Amino acid sequence: MNAPNFRKGTAVFSVILCLFAVCQTFPTLADRDALMKLEQFEFTGGNLLSTEKELRVNYIVEKLKRKEITEGMKTGSFPPAMHFFRARELIEQSPIFNIIQKMPKGAGLHLHDYALLSVDWLVKNATYLPNCYVCFTPTGSIKFHYFSRKHQKRLASCSEWILLEQYRKQIRNVTEFDNSLFRNLTLMTENPEEAYPSQNIIWKRFVEIFAAASSLISYAPVFKTYFYEALKEFHHDNVQYIEIRALLLPVYELDGTLHDKDWCILAYQDVAKQFKTDHPDFVGTKVIFSVHRSLNNSEMKTMITEALRLYKKFPETVVGFDMVGQEDAGHPLWYFKNELLIPAKMGIKLPYFFHAGETDWEGMSIDENILDALLLNTSRIGHGYSINKHPVAKKLSKTLDVPLEVCPISNQVLMLVSNLQNHPAAAWMAEGHPMVISADDPAVFGARGLSYDFYEAFMGIGGLKAELTTLKQLALNSIKYSAMSAQVKAETTKLWLKKWDQFLDDVLNMFRNDEL
Amino acid sequence: MNAPNFRKGTAVFSVILCLFAVCQTFPTLADRDALMKLEQFEFTGGNLLSTEKELRVNYIVEKLKRKEITEGMKTGSFPPAMHFFRARELIEQSPIFNIIQKMPKGAGLHLHDYALLSVDWLVKNATYLPNCYVCFTPTGSIKFHYFSRKHQKRLASCSEWILLEQYRKQIRNVTEFDNSLFRNLTLMTENPEEAYPSQNIIWKRFVEIFAAASSLISYAPVFKTYFYEALKEFHHDNVQYIEIRALLLPVYELDGTLHDKDWCILAYQDVAKQFKTDHPDFVGTKVIFSVHRSLNNSEMKTMITEALRLYKKFPETVVGFDMVGQEDAGHPLWYFKNELLIPAKMGIKLPYFFHAGETDWEGMSIDENILDALLLNTSRIGHGYSINKHPVAKKLSKTLDVPLEVCPISNQVLMLVSNLQNHPAAAWMAEGHPMVISADDPAVFGARGLSYDFYEAFMGIGGLKAELTTLKQLALNSIKYSAMSAQVKAETTKLWLKKWDQFLDDVLNMFRNDEL
Repeated sequence: MNAPNFRKGTAVFSVILCLFAVCQTFPTLADRDALMKLEQFEFTGGNLLSTEKELRVNYIVEKLKRKEITEGMKTGSFPPAMHFFRARELIEQSPIFNIIQKMPKGAGLHLHDYALLSVDWLVKNATYLPNCYVCFTPTGSIKFHYFSRKHQKRLASCSEWILLEQYRKQIRNVTEFDNSLFRNLTLMTENPEEAYPSQNIIWKRFVEIFAAASSLISYAPVFKTYFYEALKEFHHDNVQYIEIRALLLPVYELDGTLHDKDWCILAYQDVAKQFKTDHPDFVGTKVIFSVHRSLNNSEMKTMITEALRLYKKFPETVVGFDMVGQEDAGHPLWYFKNELLIPAKMGIKLPYFFHAGETDWEGMSIDENILDALLLNTSRIGHGYSINKHPVAKKLSKTLDVPLEVCPISNQVLMLVSNLQNHPAAAWMAEGHPMVISADDPAVFGARGLSYDFYEAFMGIGGLKAELTTLKQLALNSIKYSAMSAQVKAETTKLWLKKWDQFLDDVLNMFRNDEL
Repeated sequence: MNAPNFRKGTAVFSVILCLFAVCQTFPTLADRDALMKLEQFEFTGGNLLSTEKELRVNYIVEKLKRKEITEGMKTGSFPPAMHFFRARELIEQSPIFNIIQKMPKGAGLHLHDYALLSVDWLVKNATYLPNCYVCFTPTGSIKFHYFSRKHQKRLASCSEWILLEQYRKQIRNVTEFDNSLFRNLTLMTENPEEAYPSQNIIWKRFVEIFAAASSLISYAPVFKTYFYEALKEFHHDNVQYIEIRALLLPVYELDGTLHDKDWCILAYQDVAKQFKTDHPDFVGTKVIFSVHRSLNNSEMKTMITEALRLYKKFPETVVGFDMVGQEDAGHPLWYFKNELLIPAKMGIKLPYFFHAGETDWEGMSIDENILDALLLNTSRIGHGYSINKHPVAKKLSKTLDVPLEVCPISNQVLMLVSNLQNHPAAAWMAEGHPMVISADDPAVFGARGLSYDFYEAFMGIGGLKAELTTLKQLALNSIKYSAMSAQVKAETTKLWLKKWDQFLDDVLNMFRNDEL
């Protein structure tokens, strides 16, 4: 292994830092180089040694990256600084994106059950199945259901059911109609600033979209195929493993039969097993049982009991518990403290993977979630967007090695931040704070797999300072912080390293120096 | 003095923090309260003791603040989350803004010579003086000049000169015309996102506006009155002292006579002296000689020599040196290292007040400015916007007690950040990082004095966590980090405390508890 020289001097940097921080000696200009290297060293991946091959690939990546960033500075058209809905096409033209797509990205750790797979599939496949009905709500959203005619029941808040098979035969422009279904299953729109003037408004729409998607996905035959296709999409995007926050809502059959949570888990297990048989280089999938944060205390108690039961019954699949829904509009974690402490009081560790800090509103009760998530012994923090406003919680998160699950596109689309160069994760990356990159709800945002979010993180959040080792560290982090067993982590890392080596060769083959 | 209880327990917090950070003991729920108080304690102003009266005022402020923030969360219409051009009217209706206007704000430390005073005054007064001509450039901007007719000289890049006195007599709608002048002297516009699609475009416009304003202000009679009126505006806004970054460009007389830098300094001195005679509770003003960062090395050498001369000749007024202009488009500080080290090599300390980190572009050469400013021994950092991306520089800035001059509205209008709840200073405030609030170029942004920026900092950057002590600390910081002598600082603090006490009484008189 050939490591760049400066990486051998870590002891020197510590001494310099110590001098400034403790002895308050004033730095001289001669220290400039050492200080800059110290910053590079602290950066995510900055302390990874690079192989000869990695240095060559990094040379290519740096060159392409500098070109793209310089161009963006000049033209004012730089994808991470733009809304993702406008940036997506530009991103797809980027050679860096092309490289990131090919890169083995490890694990996707922050993903939601009904927003895993491109909506195209839902529209083009699920809604074309027999017995698929649609209805329209007064707010302009849609719901689907599959019935046999005799089991059909009208929803209180929706129009008459329309059988899609029949309806499509009557209308002239089926493509246009399918596009309208598509628009009802994603947040994508040409003028997001106009369409969504506030966080509350976009969250309302977001919830409607989830309801629409879940009404399709909760149909048993769709449920399984959807998950299989989702795994395919992540696998195709070079993701080796995923953990999903799953509500485990009832899944129904054509005759109205409802399946319970256990059925859902078994279905996820079956599909994952089948997928692994078909794609032996896919590691697998786990489920974080999730409930809505609007529950009351007694409902939460029931759900925690249920979580414990599932965790015990399906130890290989159900790995923990979380809450979902707009954080600003829900109960703070502290509201549920008694319920959330039940497992600990029983002497059982139920791992928590709490969303926390997905807010811009400093000082409100919700804003205590970050600290409380840590005090409640969370294994990871979903988003953690506001953690820079909580230096004590931030120190705890670093000391206790609790990673933040960064979902750049989600944070942008859901209006926490507009220019991703300003995402607080830029500080986390600069400080080497434990973190992973994920996609949250790629389907709803018009993304696919993890590559778009990795692109935003690599180009926008990390800027030119993020290197190939940053990508490597982020992927390695995703394995390290997953809920896999130690043994499976070791195997996955081994598999990943093999894929990484292949990826390096691919990049070297794609770009010859003289072409850059 | 009655301090809230938790503020007495600082030793406890240190022990808890030490436990987590050093011994890695896992926290228990019993520590929650202590940890939250520790965070409150670290917050800007969090370790200030409150008097009985301050606690009563804080009760009022907190109540009004919570109401306004809760309303903003609900309606989605919260000024710090909106563009200032749209937020301004809303801010003016806020009781918190009303309180902030009344508050003695100490010193304005980051202000530029040609953008101090509301543009209204330039349009309504300066352009109505005799002999004022205007011309139009091909890019749609304007320039002014005062000539006697025989000294008139056409500018290469401008239309024929039009005498305003005569022109106004010919046109029907003078108000409309004056409004058009106004629009040419500020960045204000109804749709800033459309008008300024990129940072480069808005900076281009910003520079044109500066040129237009300076073409008025550089006329000797305007120069002095402008400065007097500016002091009046700051004084009226309850600011006690200002430091201005001044280019000291030639000031001209009607007959074309040009005055040099020394004349400008003397003029500033005279005006300040006169103003202090008229308003004995105003402390004064100092000048930071500033040059454009586009200079080449030999020009910079000349300017540093000039700075040394001025610093020696006017020790009471010229307090240091800085560079101005769009950071991303200019030379990095390091480019001028040899010139900037001249004073140190001569054994003279020329204080530096460098702009640094006014950029979103991490990893570009400009992005090294923050560290270099510190290495070059800067006394303060102008903006420091990107410092969270530079943990080593951030540690240095804290250890060396080099404050960041935060100009929220400037950073928003010049497109570094859109929602001010996301401004990186939220982290600085949470960590009690040395900082002051300033206004940069209030005239160009449509602000006035420091109150608008204080409002944004207090409501947006600090959120509900910022208290009355935060405001107090920010004002005290502005005195502490100013270039006043130790003795004048002590006197100013004394004056300020008297005004603060009066301010507390005013707030108590304004709001009775039963009205809240």
